[in-house]
Order: sequence, then structure tokens, then C-alpha cells
Amino acid sequence: MLRSYRYGRRLDDFDVDAIYAHPWDVTVDEGTLALFSASFQDALPVYASREAARAVGLRDRPVHPLLLLNLGLSFSVHDVSEQAIAHLAYIDVRFPNACYPGDTLRASSRVIGKKPVSQGDKGVVHVRTHVVNQDDVLVCSFERKALVRTGRVEERPPDPPHDVTQRDDDPGRRPPEIALAAPSPTRPPTRRGGFATFWEDLAVDDVYAHDTGRTVSEAEHMTLSTLTRNSHPLHFDERYCQQSSFARTRVVHGGLVLSWVLALSSRDTAGNGVWDLGLDDGVHSSGVLAGDTLFAATKVLAREEVGPLLGSVTLRVVGVKNTHPRALIEQGADLFTPELGKTEGKVKEKVVEISRTLLVRRRVPATSTP
Amino acid sequence: MLRSYRYGRRLDDFDVDAIYAHPWDVTVDEGTLALFSASFQDALPVYASREAARAVGLRDRPVHPLLLLNLGLSFSVHDVSEQAIAHLAYIDVRFPNACYPGDTLRASSRVIGKKPVSQGDKGVVHVRTHVVNQDDVLVCSFERKALVRTGRVEERPPDPPHDVTQRDDDPGRRPPEIALAAPSPTRPPTRRGGFATFWEDLAVDDVYAHDTGRTVSEAEHMTLSTLTRNSHPLHFDERYCQQSSFARTRVVHGGLVLSWVLALSSRDTAGNGVWDLGLDDGVHSSGVLAGDTLFAATKVLAREEVGPLLGSVTLRVVGVKNTHPRALIEQGADLFTPELGKTEGKVKEKVVEISRTLLVRRRVPATSTP
Amino acid sequence: MLRSYRYGRRLDDFDVDAIYAHPWDVTVDEGTLALFSASFQDALPVYASREAARAVGLRDRPVHPLLLLNLGLSFSVHDVSEQAIAHLAYIDVRFPNACYPGDTLRASSRVIGKKPVSQGDKGVVHVRTHVVNQDDVLVCSFERKALVRTGRVEERPPDPPHDVTQRDDDPGRRPPEIALAAPSPTRPPTRRGGFATFWEDLAVDDVYAHDTGRTVSEAEHMTLSTLTRNSHPLHFDERYCQQSSFARTRVVHGGLVLSWVLALSSRDTAGNGVWDLGLDDGVHSSGVLAGDTLFAATKVLAREEVGPLLGSVTLRVVGVKNTHPRALIEQGADLFTPELGKTEGKVKEKVVEISRTLLVRRRVPATSTP
Repeated sequence: MLRSYRYGRRLDDFDVDAIYAHPWDVTVDEGTLALFSASFQDALPVYASREAARAVGLRDRPVHPLLLLNLGLSFSVHDVSEQAIAHLAYIDVRFPNACYPGDTLRASSRVIGKKPVSQGDKGVVHVRTHVVNQDDVLVCSFERKALVRTGRVEERPPDPPHDVTQRDDDPGRRPPEIALAAPSPTRPPTRRGGFATFWEDLAVDDVYAHDTGRTVSEAEHMTLSTLTRNSHPLHFDERYCQQSSFARTRVVHGGLVLSWVLALSSRDTAGNGVWDLGLDDGVHSSGVLAGDTLFAATKVLAREEVGPLLGSVTLRVVGVKNTHPRALIEQGADLFTPELGKTEGKVKEKVVEISRTLLVRRRVPATSTP
Repeated sequence: MLRSYRYGRRLDDFDVDAIYAHPWDVTVDEGTLALFSASFQDALPVYASREAARAVGLRDRPVHPLLLLNLGLSFSVHDVSEQAIAHLAYIDVRFPNACYPGDTLRASSRVIGKKPVSQGDKGVVHVRTHVVNQDDVLVCSFERKALVRTGRVEERPPDPPHDVTQRDDDPGRRPPEIALAAPSPTRPPTRRGGFATFWEDLAVDDVYAHDTGRTVSEAEHMTLSTLTRNSHPLHFDERYCQQSSFARTRVVHGGLVLSWVLALSSRDTAGNGVWDLGLDDGVHSSGVLAGDTLFAATKVLAREEVGPLLGSVTLRVVGVKNTHPRALIEQGADLFTPELGKTEGKVKEKVVEISRTLLVRRRVPATSTP
Repeated sequence: MLRSYRYGRRLDDFDVDAIYAHPWDVTVDEGTLALFSASFQDALPVYASREAARAVGLRDRPVHPLLLLNLGLSFSVHDVSEQAIAHLAYIDVRFPNACYPGDTLRASSRVIGKKPVSQGDKGVVHVRTHVVNQDDVLVCSFERKALVRTGRVEERPPDPPHDVTQRDDDPGRRPPEIALAAPSPTRPPTRRGGFATFWEDLAVDDVYAHDTGRTVSEAEHMTLSTLTRNSHPLHFDERYCQQSSFARTRVVHGGLVLSWVLALSSRDTAGNGVWDLGLDDGVHSSGVLAGDTLFAATKVLAREEVGPLLGSVTLRVVGVKNTHPRALIEQGADLFTPELGKTEGKVKEKVVEISRTLLVRRRVPATSTP
């Protein structure tokens, strides 16, 4: 008998309220962290340094939240989106607990909703994905929407039975152990330098055109997709893409595009960051190919005090390709309005837009840093 | 004095029964595992997850057997095949003991035989390579044949003396500690989902045309060859290749081609695998270059019970390039007959063929998974 | 307000004697080590093997000195050279203490001098960079010179205050714990083979044309620059390079070129090496692009006994691109005279030249290896 198994689902394969227990079962190790660091030069010190992590109360350097998001997205492809046409939206992404190197991760997705779109041969599926570690601690939670074809996937083997559930309570937005020690007037902290921008410097309505871009290489995006267990052939199977990709070649996974763009913004905005409190309202408005150069721009949307040492800031971060955002802004481009609702003034260079809420250090009061 | 040392051997440099102690001495770390995972999206959970490894009796996530094979092949290049024209065969590959991250590996090769081939300027050398850890535990054993030129390598420096020996007893086929706990009727196991195919599903004579391909990037194959200490310039020295490669450019190391092909087959056949009991009868029938897209097809050759929880299955796995195996099968291609003996019907797209014996979980009886 | 922060400095931004505390704060893990190994196939066993490291008195496999140098160079780009036109010289590079995976690194640079060059719109800045671990142990120290434009960087945000200092004493050249046990006449050492060249074999004035080259891939050099936190867009931002790079495309970071060249020389000269005692007098005489193939040649400059088991050797190592050094030497090229002082006979293929002093094992006396 000739078998030709296919994975993923089309619209009629999704059952609302069903939970799919994704089959991947992966220990995240120091090598995984290093591979992530080798593509995304992120400035947030807590994610890169054991010392910086301990200084905010964590027991070790945590796995980068965007790596967790990429693992969750990729693990879910096998059951949710391997046959999908497009990823439509990131919604309410949270990192309620720290994950550490050595943790073993699994993920599941619950179908929140599905509906056909007007043309009739496609539909939108809406799922919530949870990533948990070996002790069932929730380390990443997010919703997403994907565009799929109607009908069913032929030759999809049945999933093995499982008893995985998803918690329904509010998962929180940051690890409970994060706590900064107040500076002592008698023992001032060592001042070891660092990045320039603190919470006070991020003024509402300020716009940052981040200076440096990053060209994406073929090997990087394929290996990061493989590493995170993304099984959509759009990202690594050139034969498939010649027939089935909108670009007629391999397309960079959106979760990686998002990671590059946030990393490009990080020296200016996250160099004194402590934790990602959430991502929301995220959309990819066009695809990225190997060879494209990514850039980032940020607008500060809101700012809130969180005690004497910390504040939160909500940033709207936009990624564009092959053009510097400074040039776009100088030409009068409307970078920060979502593309989806625009009737005119679309920014064709835009590749991703998302809201990011960050916990950021405040400047230590002058009296305690003599 | 101008020195221009060359390594590897030609036919007259090989002494039958000689043991070459390969000079590489390498601690395999979590980074090495991650780099392997980042190119080869293997579904076998025991090799990827500490939890899955412990569930079968291993103390930690083991180093992937195919990484061990690649390390053994590559370590041996310096003494055996750096001047070789072709790798001819993989024979009796075994993984008798688990290797863990943190282990330090060395390898040696014993010359089993050598003989000139009819044309007279070339010969075949047959060696057995052992890979051992710091406690001299054998973690990988295999034989291989290579085609070399007659004569001697000029300017090969003499090897330092050594007292390395190779054990001659049967090394076994799997780590003795592998043991699955029987499901208890009173405490049924947690069912966390997983991949679809169990031992019972792998029916003899079934053929799988695996759905997804993988395009190979230049950086991936060069870095994996470098990482495993493969010193044959065919894989990473474009100047050498312009003059001396059959392809006039860099060629992907066969051990990596094999790893990609087995990984491409893994969601369909090895998602409930527990251990690689052996590879045998393996040949590369054509070369692979960066940019090629690899695909896999599998035929189930044999199946055997190994107690109530496990079975073994012997698969014939074939790799092809740039064409989907489904298309080849539909065109009537004879994929599973070895190319070497064929007088007609050769499959020019075939890049590797090998027999793989896997230990696979059986479906847990219904009574114990209420 | 539109902000467009730029980092690095121009000549007037440098204050002699100022210390810049570079903001990066990075735990070096096993993944970082593996990524380094995956591009640079270095033969020096102490840097690759925990067993080899313990045999010379170190408590674990140390972080490769050239990785430390790359981290130091790259960390300093944010404050020193992100706007620089060229890296001019490596001076007095030392590795006084071993760094181990798990250590968290920071770096600082002190301005030793600066002066305009004759044309008037450029100048040379001379800094000393120290890389320290979490316990403030100095693991890498070096000086370098860079060519920068006069004037100041617009929109450079002010550095946060710091109290970082640099020790001024002589940092030594090797970890104090390195000590080889003398072979015992009653318990001779196990002889496990290894590489061919010992200290005795490295004769002053001998020249090595190393056999194998290495082609550089786009992904490798970009990811290694990103991993080490090199923030100069010359290495990864193709848009920037189309306007501002002398090559009109991305250029490989010099610290990586140096690492490839030393790795290419390592089987012939460092296979019994124990530690890098220093690099000095290093210059890049031309740039390297992805796709170039690097080769190495070595001349033995000096040799000194360091007890009965060890010796030191000073090597002049030269890297060339796209041509085998054997061919250049046969054509009479003057490879080992520094390019800078040459009035004729320039070797346009040369990409780097540096002096390397290595601690190397001596052959164990015959009486103790029966």
C-alpha cells in the first residue's frame, strides 16, 4: 500500500473547542539559546546574562520569550497550519512564567472559533496555544488566526488519543519571582554601564527610526524553522514553493521576521528592559525572503509606573524591508496605522506590525548612585 | 624548508589490521546537539526530549545516533579518506550504548581489507570505525568502504605512536538500560498525544512517499562538516573543488545527506521510535549540492515483536533529490532495488539508500488507557 | 519627536584615558562554543575536549581564546568602532585566565591615544579592551587601532554613568593553573594518538603552506557577528553596504577572518598546542566577502623551551584568499614581510597577517613511553 501522509488541517478538520496536543517534545538547551542569539542580536540583558537575570530575581538566564513564541507557533504547525495559506494575526501573547535551559517543552492548541470567508473556498481558524514545561508550568500563551482552505486534508493519519487540557484562568503577564532589590543608601549598587534608554526616556508619541538593518540569510531562516520544529514546507522545501508559494520560492517564517524586527529595535528601547509583558494586535502585511534586509521603527503608545524601580511601556513596533524607516517617515509614510484598515496610504514595504508591552528599569534616583 | 603536509591515505598507505587512532578529541555539548537539531527535524522523541528519554530508562537525552555516525565518519577522514575519491558503503552501523551531552569522544579505525580495482590506479579500502567516550564505552561502531587512489600520499607526516585497541566482541545493538515500564491497570499513563504511527501501523511491504522535502543550504552543510571535524576539502574548499570535485563545486557530505533523508521520513515512521538498532547496506548513488531539495521514501521490509510494549521494524529508506518520490513511484520507478546491481531502470534522482532497523513503541493496550 | 540614535564614536567623541563600559552582558554557553566550532575547525585539543583540558590542569574545557577575542572586539563596537572606517591593528592580545562555559562576560575599553591623520578628515584611535567574567577575572586583554572620521556622531545618546575601571598591571599570558604532570617511569601515560606536530618539529624558519582552504558562507559570518554582538552594519546590513561599504556589499568581520586562518593552520602547527600565549602585530590588508576561500601559511619565527614537557613557539601566520599559498610561494611572493612597510612586492591576495605565540607539548621522552 502506498501511503502519503499529510499533516495540518483544512477548515472542516477543525472542531471548535477541540484541543490538539502537538506531538513535539523538546528539551530546550543552551545550544537552542545560542542559535537564537546568533540571529537576533537582542539587547535586553536579562535574556542574555545569568548575572542580569539573577539581579531581577530569576534563578537563571531564561529562555528568550520570542524563542518560546517561535517554539509554540512551530510546534502547532503539524496540527494547525501545515496546510494553511497565511498566518493572519497574533493576539494576546503572554509569558507568565520563566522557562530555563534544560526545560522540556510541549504545546497544545484549542480551537476557539472558525468561520468561512466570503469567497467560500477558504476560512479562518482561531486557536489558543499553550506552551508548558515538564512540570506543566505555562511558559507561553497566545492566540492566533490562520487562513485555511475549506474541506479536509486527505491522508491525514488520526491523532493518538490524549488527555491534555488547557487551563482557563488568566495566566498573568510575568514570572512572579521577578523583583528588583531597592538600592540601599549605604551600599550603592555597582554601576557597570549598560544601554542608554531607561523607562523615563521613552516618552509617549516619540518615534524611533532604528538605525541598523539586518539582511536575512537562507541558512539562518531555514535552520531556525527546523530547530523550532516548524513543519510548513513553505519555509524549507524549494520544490513545494515553486508550485505552491505565493513567492515561488521559500518564505521566511513570520515568527522569525517578528524576532528580527524586535531585536533591531532593542538597543534603543529594550536595553534596560526586564521582561516582555505581552505582544498583541500583530499582523504580517507582506512576506520576507532570504536576501531581504529588515529594519524597525517604534512609536511609544503608553507608559505606566510600576513601583519606584520599574515602569511599563507599550510600543508599536513596525518592521519594513529594504528601505530605511527614516526615509519612509521623511516621505510622509503613515507607518503606525495598521495596514488592514487602510483605504489609502498603504506602506508596501511593511512586513510586520505589533504592540509590545515591556517592563523597563527606571533610572535609579541620583541620591542612591553617588 | 617548505612543508606542505597532506593527510588521509592512498592504497599503499593502508596496512591491513592496522588501527589508526584518529587525532580528534571532542566534548559533545548541548550546542552540538542543537546544531544537529537545527538542520535535521527528527521526530523520534527520545533523541530530543529529556522526559522522553527518561521514560525509556535512559538517564538523560542521548546524543542522536546519526550525529555519532557523522562524528565517527568525520573523525576518520584525517587518517582514512581525506584523499579518497568516493565513499562506497555503510555496513553494520550500531549504537550499542547511549552517549550523553558532556561526553568526550574519540574514534579509531581498523583496516579490515584492501584491494585494487580492475583499472589498476584505484583500490577499495574497508575499515571498521569505533567511537568511544571518555570511559572507553563504545557508542558507535560501523564499517565502511572507500575508493582511493593507489600509491602513497606525499608529505604525510607520520602518526604519533599510540596504544589504542578495538574490542572484537559483538557490541550489541542498543543501550542495556532501555526498558519501558509496563502500564499499570490502576495508574494508567498520562496520554500526552504524540505522533500517529506505532509499530502495529508499519505493515510489511507498505511504502511511504514522505510528503515534505528539505532544501539544503550552503552554510548548513559546511558548518555541520566543520563541526564534526570532517577534513575532506570536497565539502568546504571551493578552490579545491573547482579542480578536483566531480561536480566542480562543493559537495554535501554523505553522512549529512543520510541524516536529512532519515529525518524527512521520521514523522511518518519514527515518531514512536525508541532507538536505532542499526543501519546497514547503505550506498550513495549520486552526489548532493547546496540548493538541492531532498525527499525520502520508505518501504517496510520486516517487523518483529520485542515484548508487549515494543517491536522492531526494518525499513528500506531511499533519498531522492529535486523530485517528489510520489511522482517517481507513479511513473513506475523502481525505487527500492539497490542501484548497484541494476542493469536497467536506474533511478538517477536517487542519492542514498539504506536499511534502518528501529525499536518502536507498540500501541498501549486499550484496557490500560481508559 | 523623531529619534534616530546612532552608536560608535568619531574622533572628537573620544577622550584620552576615558573608559567605556560596553553595554553587552552575555553568558557564554555551550551553544556559543559549538557555533564557534562549527565554523572554525581548530585542532588544538585543550579548547575542544574536557579530557584534554583536565590533562593540562584546567577544570573544564575553556572558551576558545579566539572566541574571547571576537567577543571583546564585537562588544566594543557599540562604543568604539560602529562608525569606524577600518580596523587597523591588533596589538598585544593576551589570555591571562581561562574562561569557562557558563561564565558571564562584559568588556570595557580605555582610550590610550588618538590623533588625526594627515588628510585631516580622519583620525586613528588606539584603545585597550579588557574582557572580564562575573568575578571580574580578566580573560582577554588586547589593544587595537581603528580609523575613524573626525567630528562627532550626531544623535548619539549619552552613556549611563559607570564605575568600571581597568587594572593596569601586567596581566600575564596564561592561566596559572596550567601544569602538565610529568610522565611517571612506573606508570607511563596512555598513548591515544593525536596530531603529528610537536614542539620539536616546529623548526625556526620552516614555512608551512597549509593544504586545505575554507570557503566562507554568508550565513556563517553574519551569525557569528550577531552572536558575538558585533553591531557594525558593514557585516550584516546589505542596504547600508550598498551605499557605505568599500565593497558595496557585506564584509566579513576581521576577527572571524583571523579565526578561520588560524584554524586552517592548526592541524599542522597547533595539534599539540596547550594555550595561546599571545597574538601581536596583526593587520588586515584586504577585506573578505562571503564566497571567498581562505588559506593559511605559517613561518616559524622563534622557539623556546618551557620546562621538560613544554615549549613555546612564535609563528607568523598569513591568510590569503582564493589562491593557494603554495602557488604564491612558488611564484616567489614575499608572503611574510608585513604589507604595510612594502614599497614593492605587495601580495594583493593577503587578508591578514599576525604573530602567534603558542605553548606546545614536547615529545614525551622515549624512556617514559615504552
